[in-house]
Amino acid sequence: MAIRIGIYGYGNLGKGVETAIKNSSDLELVGVFTRRDPKSLKTLTGANVYSASSVLDFTDKIDVMVLCGGSATDLPEQTPYLAKYFNVVDSFDNHSKIPEHLKSVAKSSEGANKTAIISVGWDPGMFSLNRLYASSVLTNSKYYTFWGKGVSQGHSDAIRRIDGVKDAKQYTVPVESALERVRNGENPELTTREKHLRECFVVACEGADLNRIENEIKTMPAYFADYDTTVNFISQEELNEKHSGIPHGGFVICSGSTGLNGENNHVIEYSLKLDSNPEFTSSVLVAYARACYKLNRKGEYGAKTVIDIPPAYLSSKDYNDLVKELI
Amino acid sequence: MAIRIGIYGYGNLGKGVETAIKNSSDLELVGVFTRRDPKSLKTLTGANVYSASSVLDFTDKIDVMVLCGGSATDLPEQTPYLAKYFNVVDSFDNHSKIPEHLKSVAKSSEGANKTAIISVGWDPGMFSLNRLYASSVLTNSKYYTFWGKGVSQGHSDAIRRIDGVKDAKQYTVPVESALERVRNGENPELTTREKHLRECFVVACEGADLNRIENEIKTMPAYFADYDTTVNFISQEELNEKHSGIPHGGFVICSGSTGLNGENNHVIEYSLKLDSNPEFTSSVLVAYARACYKLNRKGEYGAKTVIDIPPAYLSSKDYNDLVKELI
Repeated sequence: MAIRIGIYGYGNLGKGVETAIKNSSDLELVGVFTRRDPKSLKTLTGANVYSASSVLDFTDKIDVMVLCGGSATDLPEQTPYLAKYFNVVDSFDNHSKIPEHLKSVAKSSEGANKTAIISVGWDPGMFSLNRLYASSVLTNSKYYTFWGKGVSQGHSDAIRRIDGVKDAKQYTVPVESALERVRNGENPELTTREKHLRECFVVACEGADLNRIENEIKTMPAYFADYDTTVNFISQEELNEKHSGIPHGGFVICSGSTGLNGENNHVIEYSLKLDSNPEFTSSVLVAYARACYKLNRKGEYGAKTVIDIPPAYLSSKDYNDLVKELI
Repeated sequence: MAIRIGIYGYGNLGKGVETAIKNSSDLELVGVFTRRDPKSLKTLTGANVYSASSVLDFTDKIDVMVLCGGSATDLPEQTPYLAKYFNVVDSFDNHSKIPEHLKSVAKSSEGANKTAIISVGWDPGMFSLNRLYASSVLTNSKYYTFWGKGVSQGHSDAIRRIDGVKDAKQYTVPVESALERVRNGENPELTTREKHLRECFVVACEGADLNRIENEIKTMPAYFADYDTTVNFISQEELNEKHSGIPHGGFVICSGSTGLNGENNHVIEYSLKLDSNPEFTSSVLVAYARACYKLNRKGEYGAKTVIDIPPAYLSSKDYNDLVKELI
């Protein structure tokens, strides 16, 4: 019998979960829950749409609810609330607030006999796992995380808020020479500026002062001031044509030594090159939804993160086949 | 209190485990067990040496026994036997026989309230984990494993057995163009010859027929016949000077698509570049020895593989610190 999944929130992430479920024969999509008028929403695969307010009618019809809201305001409320009634998986990605979110989900779901896995995706998520595995094996190592080349939604939004900007897309780009130094095992100290570049493609309103816009971008605190930033003004047509995707990716590189006197060096590198950031994140969410269900069936209740989950639980394949084929 | 470790077998792997324990403050080495005369053996760190025949005197003095014997004949006997009396970790790496070995360890340790983790290292081990994670997330993907550049002990031995060969070292080298095709998401079908090259450095005996030796190497079934093989005759001095290390490494690359019509492609790549193959394997063994102890304390008994182990168990760090720093 298929694992019955619900999707709570229907943006890019929800759509990605929907298509990932369609491609997984062991999962079945019960429906999408939205705060909008359900009738106004047309799903990609024709999945049922229900009002978020009716979600508690589905407690015995859904095995795992995949939460697809945003980390800023949605998930800090939704995950603790829904974790009382459903097994849940979310992609909470505000790194500095993960301990707090984990605690809040753990507390609210106490005694509910439900399983919650938070902060699932690629960073946090697959990158977290790789930071953990690498630094557990090479105990005296240093690890580095680089992001990109990829679109930063937050930075693109920040540019769009500037007066005279009609549209914009920002790419975060890892600095190749920094990557090389880390790969060589140099374990360098790298500043923010030395690790990433920021490339901006901006559509200006007619008659806008391009110099002012460029200057406002490059000096924007936190977002751009600490980076080498390039600003390219292009037409809306070019932006639509060449920059409509949401690719992303990155690298976790860990380097450390072994031996009586640390004489042997080792480099562990994990990288992702993703055509669609939300669709990949969704695929990770779906794999962990599967794990969430299995853990719950085994009586493993409470709030968890990716580092708590035995890897075999992510697969739909038979355990003996995994041992035979993958190990 | 430190976790008390025993080392069973003292070759390159045992030495690597010894130094890895020295670099781990939460672990304590009780001693090395050898089938040789204990007095004949001098350890790198001055660790105690005991006769393998006395190992059962240590059942209450050792928390985890790390088995450092070979996969051909040692581990198939030693792991099932010792798993009755100790928590054990081994690096059994004969891929096709892993299911059988797992079953044998499971059966023999039944009812013993001990925990055994088999086939720990990098392949099987970290590579297995990456094959599993990647193919669980990208369910319609194809994964590729490349090895090298690194020394193959088995192939070096095979060359040394040829008449007229004094010494030899063989490197397995991944074919760069094949790597590139996989990284580009082409999902190619690759033959054995297309994936790896074999580079041989051979010291011939004085007066030996070099053409015959080269021909015997290149036509050796299973070992070389299916590969593009290069043979370089060098002096013993050059072999000692330039080819005395045991580096290795490799790549697991997985590529798959997402989206309603599979329109977005994703590439996941994991790679290792290791100065010392046995020392890195040892470091993985030591991390899993830590996990083995913790699992046993939690009452998780029986025979397991890396895909069964929650990643957080590998680390010596406090769980809350892991959540805060690594996720």
